[in-house]
Amino acid sequence: METYNVAIMGATGAVGQVMLEILAERDFPVGELRLLASARSVGKEFEFGGKTIAVQELKEDSFAGIDLVLASAGGSLSKQYNPHAVAAGAVVVDNTSAFRMDPEVPLVVPEINPQDLEWHKGIIANPNCSTIIMDVVVWPLYRQKRVRRVVVSTYQAVSGAGARAMEELEQQTREVLAGKKAEPRELPYQIAFNLFSHNSAIGPEGYCEEEMKMIKETRKMFHDDQIQVTATTVRVPVMRAHSEAINLEFEEPISAAEAREILAAAAGVKIVDEIEANHFPMPIEASGEDDVLVGRIRQDISRPDGRGLDLWVSGDQLRKGAALNAVQIAEELVERRVFQKV
Amino acid sequence: METYNVAIMGATGAVGQVMLEILAERDFPVGELRLLASARSVGKEFEFGGKTIAVQELKEDSFAGIDLVLASAGGSLSKQYNPHAVAAGAVVVDNTSAFRMDPEVPLVVPEINPQDLEWHKGIIANPNCSTIIMDVVVWPLYRQKRVRRVVVSTYQAVSGAGARAMEELEQQTREVLAGKKAEPRELPYQIAFNLFSHNSAIGPEGYCEEEMKMIKETRKMFHDDQIQVTATTVRVPVMRAHSEAINLEFEEPISAAEAREILAAAAGVKIVDEIEANHFPMPIEASGEDDVLVGRIRQDISRPDGRGLDLWVSGDQLRKGAALNAVQIAEELVERRVFQKV
Repeated sequence: METYNVAIMGATGAVGQVMLEILAERDFPVGELRLLASARSVGKEFEFGGKTIAVQELKEDSFAGIDLVLASAGGSLSKQYNPHAVAAGAVVVDNTSAFRMDPEVPLVVPEINPQDLEWHKGIIANPNCSTIIMDVVVWPLYRQKRVRRVVVSTYQAVSGAGARAMEELEQQTREVLAGKKAEPRELPYQIAFNLFSHNSAIGPEGYCEEEMKMIKETRKMFHDDQIQVTATTVRVPVMRAHSEAINLEFEEPISAAEAREILAAAAGVKIVDEIEANHFPMPIEASGEDDVLVGRIRQDISRPDGRGLDLWVSGDQLRKGAALNAVQIAEELVERRVFQKV
Repeated sequence: METYNVAIMGATGAVGQVMLEILAERDFPVGELRLLASARSVGKEFEFGGKTIAVQELKEDSFAGIDLVLASAGGSLSKQYNPHAVAAGAVVVDNTSAFRMDPEVPLVVPEINPQDLEWHKGIIANPNCSTIIMDVVVWPLYRQKRVRRVVVSTYQAVSGAGARAMEELEQQTREVLAGKKAEPRELPYQIAFNLFSHNSAIGPEGYCEEEMKMIKETRKMFHDDQIQVTATTVRVPVMRAHSEAINLEFEEPISAAEAREILAAAAGVKIVDEIEANHFPMPIEASGEDDVLVGRIRQDISRPDGRGLDLWVSGDQLRKGAALNAVQIAEELVERRVFQKV
């Protein structure tokens, strides 16, 4: 079997670590594995495939002999290093926002638009985590019944802000329980027993960057500039799964039963909709899962024309929202034999 | 000054305790204060107005000489005891859901429909907490620009499930941090570092009772059977303030600036919308406040016709969501001199 030499950029981060887990879990045909991070992580060691691998400093010449880069070290580092990786002959699956809206770069969720991998030029962008978790569920409905408008409210885990934010939630919660005042560091406000509007910068329309990503990335992946999306993105004291309340407006009427049938057949989606038991998607059950959980599937009572649907989803931010989707992209590249630049 | 003999039904509960606080804070003209609760709370003592008051067992004959009952002991106890209180000559402000949709009972938020107090027959219903917190903000916009449809997602504190649920959040969080398995008691699922769809029963339309309250109670208070509401209600690991992402569809276009002007002049509402600082309503800042905080005021980008608005609110569930609104109803009864049955 052919193998691929893989480099993980940002190997010590929350997403980098899950990339390592998922490459192993899914038996991705890894030849050499190179773990790249900033100078301060050099010397850290991780196990992979029975070997101990030491972290190396990320440099412009880090990519010699590498076939695949999984990049998750932040947008500015992707901007700086991805061109070097591509020049060295690697394909980069980039988990940052740096290249997502670049018209030369495909933005891909394999369940949605794998065909866009065919025209990659060396960089493939992994979408925003909230966008992936929403669109894996919205896409199969869209494809069959054409969604015109989405109103989404997110309940986003701290993992989206990185490993240090996860530590902060745990540590700060201990402090608040001990009667101490919360001292936010990674996150802008107290997160223990609190929640707040996503703290990315607010643009001229009044939407924060996280919300604009959900709007623009959905249009790009669906190849539909007409689909309307409004979003309110909120950080909640949850460790690693994002939840979302999704309201959909369709071109035609759709019943909850039809929606359930479509979602039951959809890849990457698992229905958790036990009405009698009041058991629906929850972060603690979505964590560690590959599928995005969906429940509370109901016709929107506020649309007597039957063209509305309400859904409630929960998905692992580190897995399907980031690392898993990136590895699935790599698998799809192998499958489609497009592991080279167009 | 005329004084009123007041009984609190459910005096030892989370809402009952805040009723006691608010009666004192606002100098409500209390004559005698009678604290009523179940037999197991008899003997507990609370301070009020410099006196120590012992809890008495709630009985059918508990209401002799009482002018005002603030009832918050649960719907079945309200159904059982309110008629006795009314028969004894008292006015009942009922915080439970027992009488809210009774056409003979006004359902009142003083900032919205105080005139409905004029036709009370002894019982006045206090609306559901999520409904109050939404409608205090939606009403002033509705009155000036006619809202046609609301899509709301809630982030509800555990206080809405009572004092024991608040203890459970704290205690269970300690246990989870200590590596123990969560053992839900008051709440149906783990609440520490988790969240879940509101666990009230799901009806035939697929909506839970909490959601149907937001729909039906809004229509009743607004005197508008045509206003459409869809809701997804979610319990989050927050102590005592509910937050809500609210999407509004209007009859006519409305700008964010117009909305801000209307809300700035609205009673019971405080704008917290510091875009540069990324400072918006948060549960920890809404807790202990009388006003419902509103921010993220923006025109809905998904409606190019300009008829949409997105808002983010946070309000103290125990205060404006329950005890404060009940005491404000009592104050309005005094003000309007309708402290007797029609």
